[in-house]
Amino acid sequence: MKPDTQPVTGWLADVKFGPDGLLPAIAQDAASGAMLMVAWMNAESLAETAASGRAVYWSRSRGRLWRKGEESGNVQIVNEIRLDCDGDVILLKVEQQGGIACHTGRASCFFRRLDGAPDAPTWTTVDPVLKDPELIYK
Amino acid sequence: MKPDTQPVTGWLADVKFGPDGLLPAIAQDAASGAMLMVAWMNAESLAETAASGRAVYWSRSRGRLWRKGEESGNVQIVNEIRLDCDGDVILLKVEQQGGIACHTGRASCFFRRLDGAPDAPTWTTVDPVLKDPELIYK
Repeated sequence: MKPDTQPVTGWLADVKFGPDGLLPAIAQDAASGAMLMVAWMNAESLAETAASGRAVYWSRSRGRLWRKGEESGNVQIVNEIRLDCDGDVILLKVEQQGGIACHTGRASCFFRRLDGAPDAPTWTTVDPVLKDPELIYK
Repeated sequence: MKPDTQPVTGWLADVKFGPDGLLPAIAQDAASGAMLMVAWMNAESLAETAASGRAVYWSRSRGRLWRKGEESGNVQIVNEIRLDCDGDVILLKVEQQGGIACHTGRASCFFRRLDGAPDAPTWTTVDPVLKDPELIYK
């Protein structure tokens, strides 16, 4: 099913998907508050997330539903789903199984920090790889 | 200046803006970890954010730079700028002046939570209005 042909009814009608049928979804660690990742959702993935209690995104690169952890085992258990004031961003508060959200083997996708002199800053990797990605996606 | 005509050099070259010249930027409270809001940035707004230490977004509705707090006074002091693994989402860790990020007068834009029976959930407003928006934007 294409992202833009998903029927939208009930609580889903309050969610404003973009012209491509997608909106950004943020995953935050429910316990620590750490920002884990941002991915995209269509109506079908949001509906399945709500029904199953596990994070399901829409993979733009693969053009299909992406049940987070389907390959890595690093499933996200969803404790809470929130919607922002404009209705166009979803926030998930999750329990990250395996403690690794990022495909690089790190806890969070936001592992690069802007550091250095204000006139010449650089992106510095500040978070460690917890598990070799080759072992995650074997 | 249009979003897609901004020159991109140095650290900005690692940031992948979308076809429209924009990417999502997440603001998180630096102290509490609370998710505050998501807005959009072009290269110019990100460069000014880094240089000034205050959050500057691109307002899609107004088609211009949006210096957060320019009307409300609720400026965001930026403690940290992070980039995700794909280079297409920015995370700001901020000190939210006035304690209000949302135009509805709430601390966070994510004040609606999906509650109720799994087969018929509804969005419930769970966070209070801290200040009447008419007093914020007077």
